Amino acid sequence: MLDCAIIGGGPAGLTAGLYTTRGGLKNVVMFEMGMPGGQITQSSEIENYPGFYQHGKTGMDFMNTWQEQCFAFGLKHEMKKVERVSKEQEHFIVTFEDGNSVKAKTVIVGTGSTPKRTGIKGEDEFWGKGVSTCATCDGFFYKNQEVAVLGGGDTALEEAHYLSNICSKVYLIHRRDKFRAAPSTVERVKKIDNIELITDTIIEEIEGDMMGVTGVRLKNLKTGEKSNLKVSGIFIFVGHNVNNSVLKDENGNFICDMSDWGQVIVDLNMKTSLKGLYATGDMRIEAPKQVVSAAGDGAVAALQVISYLQEEG
Amino acid sequence: MLDCAIIGGGPAGLTAGLYTTRGGLKNVVMFEMGMPGGQITQSSEIENYPGFYQHGKTGMDFMNTWQEQCFAFGLKHEMKKVERVSKEQEHFIVTFEDGNSVKAKTVIVGTGSTPKRTGIKGEDEFWGKGVSTCATCDGFFYKNQEVAVLGGGDTALEEAHYLSNICSKVYLIHRRDKFRAAPSTVERVKKIDNIELITDTIIEEIEGDMMGVTGVRLKNLKTGEKSNLKVSGIFIFVGHNVNNSVLKDENGNFICDMSDWGQVIVDLNMKTSLKGLYATGDMRIEAPKQVVSAAGDGAVAALQVISYLQEEG
Repeated sequence: MLDCAIIGGGPAGLTAGLYTTRGGLKNVVMFEMGMPGGQITQSSEIENYPGFYQHGKTGMDFMNTWQEQCFAFGLKHEMKKVERVSKEQEHFIVTFEDGNSVKAKTVIVGTGSTPKRTGIKGEDEFWGKGVSTCATCDGFFYKNQEVAVLGGGDTALEEAHYLSNICSKVYLIHRRDKFRAAPSTVERVKKIDNIELITDTIIEEIEGDMMGVTGVRLKNLKTGEKSNLKVSGIFIFVGHNVNNSVLKDENGNFICDMSDWGQVIVDLNMKTSLKGLYATGDMRIEAPKQVVSAAGDGAVAALQVISYLQEEG
Repeated sequence: MLDCAIIGGGPAGLTAGLYTTRGGLKNVVMFEMGMPGGQITQSSEIENYPGFYQHGKTGMDFMNTWQEQCFAFGLKHEMKKVERVSKEQEHFIVTFEDGNSVKAKTVIVGTGSTPKRTGIKGEDEFWGKGVSTCATCDGFFYKNQEVAVLGGGDTALEEAHYLSNICSKVYLIHRRDKFRAAPSTVERVKKIDNIELITDTIIEEIEGDMMGVTGVRLKNLKTGEKSNLKVSGIFIFVGHNVNNSVLKDENGNFICDMSDWGQVIVDLNMKTSLKGLYATGDMRIEAPKQVVSAAGDGAVAALQVISYLQEEG
C-alpha cells in the first residue's frame, strides 16, 4: 500500500513528490510514462520562473536540476501509464493500462492539459520555435515585434490583448467574420490600435528558417485570395484538452466533481470532492498554466496529504 | 496613477512584480521598507524550492538571483512604509507613514506574517541556526536527530507529528499539563512512539555553539526542578502575527473580508472581496507558508491584475 500515488510528472507532480518525501513519507511513487518535466521541457527559454534566471537556458536544462532535487528525498518513479483511479472503502486503487494495479492511501493527480494542434503545415516543425500556445509564457520574447494570433474565442482575444501591451503589432486571424468571444471582449479588442483583425481567413502554412518562424501564408475563404504575413511568432488558441481520463470510472463517470470544461474542482488546499484525492496544476479549475503556480499546487497538495495521513492514521 | 501597487517585497510581491511588468504593465511599484526577499533571507539553507538545489546555498544567495530577475522587466522598488490602502470610486489610494500617498488602479498585498518570539534567552542568537518556526521548511535538516518542539496548540502538536516522521526523537515541551489543541490531536500525538511529552515545563535558555543549537535548559514549573536536554533543533510554535494592518481604514475596520484569525479571505485567483485588490502569500487564508506557494500566488494575482485592467480599461 503506497502512502501516496502521484499521477503525472510535470512541475506539480514532481513538487508533490519532493514535499511528501522530504516530509517523511516513505512510500511515494510518481507514475509518468515519459520523461518527468511536463510541457515545460519543450520550451526553448525560461525566464519567468522566479529564481531561475540564466539567459539562454532551455526548459530541459531547467528540469534537470529540478528532477535531481525532487528525487533526492526518496521519491520513486515508475514508467507506467495509469488507466484509472478508483476508491474502495478507505483506500484508492490505481489501475494501469496493462491491467495491473496498486493500492494507495492518497492520490495526487497532476496530468495537465494538452493544447490542441491545428494540423497546419509547419506547426509541428516550429512548435516552441515561434509557435506558442501561451502568451504569458512567451509573449515577452517578441517584445516590439510583430506576431499573429490564431483563434476566435475568449482566450484568443484576451491573449491578443495581452500581447498588444508587449508587441509592436498583433494580427488576429480568424476563419469566420463572427467571434465566439463575448461581445464586450470583441469590442474592447477592436479599439486597440496595434491589433488588426483579419477575418474569414485561415493559415495555410507556417514558414520559417533555422532561427524559427518568419511568417504565415494566409488564404481568405470568401475571396480565395492568398497573401503572406511577416511575423516572428504565431500564438495558437484553438483550445486545450484537459487530461482527466484517469478520473473516469469504468462507466465513464468522473469520481470527483468537475467543471463544465472538464477541469477538476478544488479548493485552496487542492482538495477535490473525494476525500484523499487532490488535483494540481493545469487540470484544475482556474489554473493559471504557469510552472510556478503548478509547483505551488504540488507543495500544497503534499502538505495536505501528510496532514490527512496523520489524521486518518 | 500606478497600474499596480505591490505592497510587500517577499516571494509573493517580487513574483507579482515579475509577472505584471513582463506582461507589459509600465507603471508598477513595489513598496517594501527593507531589503526585498522576505523571511526566507534569514534561512541558512534552502532545499525545498523546486529548481534551486545547490548544497549550502543560503536564503540570501537564493534571493539575489530572484531579485535580479524580478527587477529585470521594469518593476520599481520604493523603500516606503505603507500605512494603509483605501479605495475611492474606481481607484486605490496607498498612504505612507510619512503622510504622502499615491493612486493606483490595482493593489496586490503580500505583507506576510511574523512568527511570534518567546523572548527566551538564546532565541535571537540562534534564530535560523537551530531555532525554527517551520517544520516543513527545516525538519529535514534534523533527519535522524533529536529535536524539541515548544507549544501546546494545534500547530505545535501537528508539527511535532510531522517531525516524528523525520527525526529520531521529538520532545514536546509545554508550560501547562493541558493542551489547547483538539483532544483528538492530543490523543493521536500521545500514541506516537518517538514523541515524548514534557508538560508543566518551560525553556529557560537555548544553548549552542558556533555550529548552532546544542540543547535547551528546562525548568519544571510544578517541582521547580531544572534539567538539560540535548537537541540540535528547537521548533517554536507560539503563534504568528498576520501583517494585515495596511488593510485597516482610519477607524480600524478592514477594507475587505478577513478570517477570524486576521487572514485575508481569497479565492483561487487571489481575489479579495474588494474589486481590484488581491492578497498573496502568508497573509491569506489557508496559506501553506512555503516560498514556492507564495510565488505561485504572486503570479496568479499579477495575471488577474492584467485581466482586470484589460476589462476595466
